[in-house]
Amino acid sequence: MAGKPETQIRPISNIVIVVAMEMEALPIVNRFRLTRQPHSSFPERVPWVRYGGTYKDLSINLIWPGKDPASAIGHCFVLSATSPDPFLSGTTGGFKAKGASIGDIFIISGCAFHDRRIPIPGFDLYGVGLRKAFDTPNLIKELNLKVGRLSTGNSLDMTLQDESLIMANDATVIDMEGAAIAYVADLLKVPAIFVKAVTNIVDGDKPIVEEFLENLAAVADALDPAVEQVVNFINGNSLSEL
Amino acid sequence: MAGKPETQIRPISNIVIVVAMEMEALPIVNRFRLTRQPHSSFPERVPWVRYGGTYKDLSINLIWPGKDPASAIGHCFVLSATSPDPFLSGTTGGFKAKGASIGDIFIISGCAFHDRRIPIPGFDLYGVGLRKAFDTPNLIKELNLKVGRLSTGNSLDMTLQDESLIMANDATVIDMEGAAIAYVADLLKVPAIFVKAVTNIVDGDKPIVEEFLENLAAVADALDPAVEQVVNFINGNSLSEL
Repeated sequence: MAGKPETQIRPISNIVIVVAMEMEALPIVNRFRLTRQPHSSFPERVPWVRYGGTYKDLSINLIWPGKDPASAIGHCFVLSATSPDPFLSGTTGGFKAKGASIGDIFIISGCAFHDRRIPIPGFDLYGVGLRKAFDTPNLIKELNLKVGRLSTGNSLDMTLQDESLIMANDATVIDMEGAAIAYVADLLKVPAIFVKAVTNIVDGDKPIVEEFLENLAAVADALDPAVEQVVNFINGNSLSEL
Repeated sequence: MAGKPETQIRPISNIVIVVAMEMEALPIVNRFRLTRQPHSSFPERVPWVRYGGTYKDLSINLIWPGKDPASAIGHCFVLSATSPDPFLSGTTGGFKAKGASIGDIFIISGCAFHDRRIPIPGFDLYGVGLRKAFDTPNLIKELNLKVGRLSTGNSLDMTLQDESLIMANDATVIDMEGAAIAYVADLLKVPAIFVKAVTNIVDGDKPIVEEFLENLAAVADALDPAVEQVVNFINGNSLSEL
């Protein structure tokens, strides 16, 4: 392990889980017996809610951004305030043409945006914002999880332009926060691991919004044991062992 | 002035100017003889650049987010770190059908997003994110400035969906950061005043990107004296006198 920084080889001790919606947050809060933290070290008046606790050898914080679901700012303050070893997050839409089914759990290999079109050389790549997620080959193999790329946009529906850029991003799954989280993680040099449960099939027969609402509760329940498996695998391991 | 908070009635002493592009930043930096501030109180490694100085009775900070032009996170850290009385910002595209011409200076009455479509009750309004700017009737009258609504999106081009939501937002001008800045200002309770110079006509004959690039330098030069006029009006006045 010569040359690896100390944070890569010591056992992971501090993780943050970020989810966008209360329905995703509560099963995880209950599973790890987290309690609401009144002094959140966020700026006054922000709507973000923080839960915390200890599970095995890990200190776990869970952040639910409250009425502010897509806020990269929330994530930035979370990571600044908690300095986690790695952090994890949320639910997603998937493409059956790329091998996604409802309830599947994906680990994300890389993220990009599909609705930041800035056709000026240099700014175009800034807009796409392609970033690799933290590499976790052992975790993926041991838990037998699917792997895919994630594309992020600010809308729950999908225009033709969005669709063509999602294809250009070679995405299997899409969401509304991942690439913003990857950006913040990159900025603050915190490893990001994306554990994403598929709520709806984007290229299927049902309207996106209808299927999303129909499946959210059931899929949030599938996300929760997957997060537990991942957290159990993380416990006792170092970043370089993931 | 009974009932007004103290910050509303004391003379303004500290302002922050936020601009997206270096070409907008430099004329303002030169005009107010600001100098680059090495210790920026930002997290390590972030690309945001801060200039500071004193002009008349005002402490002025100018932030240019560097390679990170559309970052609400940058604005959030800026406002957290500098706690300004009010702050100001940037360039914009305008609609001639709504009365905008190249080089016009607008004060913004309110901002909303046009590319955050979340068709779920409650989340839909969160997506649109309509917020009023700080009210400055005396400044507008004294400097004889145009007033209009601003719509913000992550892309420099405009899809049909964007266009229809820009119309729904009743916007005269559009940009790529305003509504995110309004959101941050609202979160941190800092008054936001938007001074926007029109770089391109969105509903004209020329392609948006081409016209934007063609006019940016000239319009940045028009923005700079307008910002000076506004700063001169602010100097010696309280928030409630603007």
